[in-house]
Amino acid sequence: MSTARADRRDETRIVADPALPTIVITREFEASPERVFRAYTDPELVVQWLGPRRLTMRIDAYEAHSGGSYRYVHREDDGTEYGFRGVFHEVRRDERIVQTFAFDGHPDGVSLETTLFEDLGGRTRVTTTSLMYSIEARDSMIRSGMRRGVSEGHERLDELLDSATAAARTDQSPTRKA
Amino acid sequence: MSTARADRRDETRIVADPALPTIVITREFEASPERVFRAYTDPELVVQWLGPRRLTMRIDAYEAHSGGSYRYVHREDDGTEYGFRGVFHEVRRDERIVQTFAFDGHPDGVSLETTLFEDLGGRTRVTTTSLMYSIEARDSMIRSGMRRGVSEGHERLDELLDSATAAARTDQSPTRKA
Repeated sequence: MSTARADRRDETRIVADPALPTIVITREFEASPERVFRAYTDPELVVQWLGPRRLTMRIDAYEAHSGGSYRYVHREDDGTEYGFRGVFHEVRRDERIVQTFAFDGHPDGVSLETTLFEDLGGRTRVTTTSLMYSIEARDSMIRSGMRRGVSEGHERLDELLDSATAAARTDQSPTRKA
Repeated sequence: MSTARADRRDETRIVADPALPTIVITREFEASPERVFRAYTDPELVVQWLGPRRLTMRIDAYEAHSGGSYRYVHREDDGTEYGFRGVFHEVRRDERIVQTFAFDGHPDGVSLETTLFEDLGGRTRVTTTSLMYSIEARDSMIRSGMRRGVSEGHERLDELLDSATAAARTDQSPTRKA
């Protein structure tokens, strides 16, 4: 079962628009919009998947509601930390998140991110469009190694959704009622 | 004195970039960055100048600090209301404001706005760059009549700064001590 599931997994697509200062990230997940949305907004879940595998994540704030703020830190084994922060302009349950995003190391390089959750009938397509002030800023973001971090994060989210599905299946199994 | 001051007044420049989905608004004011910044962040002052003359403004929230939210309403004489809201990503005193912006009538059309306050030696240049998700959205914003509203707002801000200057001058005059 888990092998068949793995075979069906989508790949993360990351597209830099030739004309606009945007990055469009698209990925499909084997779970409902409700579950995927929760994984994007509940800090106890976010901390389990966001970012590359080699980094440890610490969440200082994650107020995923319209008007809320967030801040988190990714940490290398050698102690180096990368902090990120922003505000949520809108969090529309199971549908849409609009937030700002900035890296502590370059606080003036603010981007606007819109994430949409589309119901594909049990599966969910997530599309995040990041908008920056210039093509140069966008290209610099692409060159920063974000592709690998984003793809690995999505793989970790697959695993989290799988394990939650397995746990739910176990909870519902007749043997548990004994 | 007020005539000479009026002669020196700047005009609001509004430029739509040919290649990027941005609008750049530039204006100079006859006051220090500290005073102009305060007029942009203190709701009791904002309500006196923001927007076209014909509309009445009501501020529901104006938390001009990093992580704060704002919402205000412009009202026509016939009762028609136009609401706007967003969040402040960063408010850096006397220097810089980064915020999101959306019109209630089109809540998905979110833009990112960065306003810079430059000290020209007693005068201040304010530059606001609005960033949208597409050239079409930007052109639609230009066509909405924003030019007149922005220019009139700046004229009203000139008047507010003038009257505050006059009041300060009166406060400091020796006759007031009598």
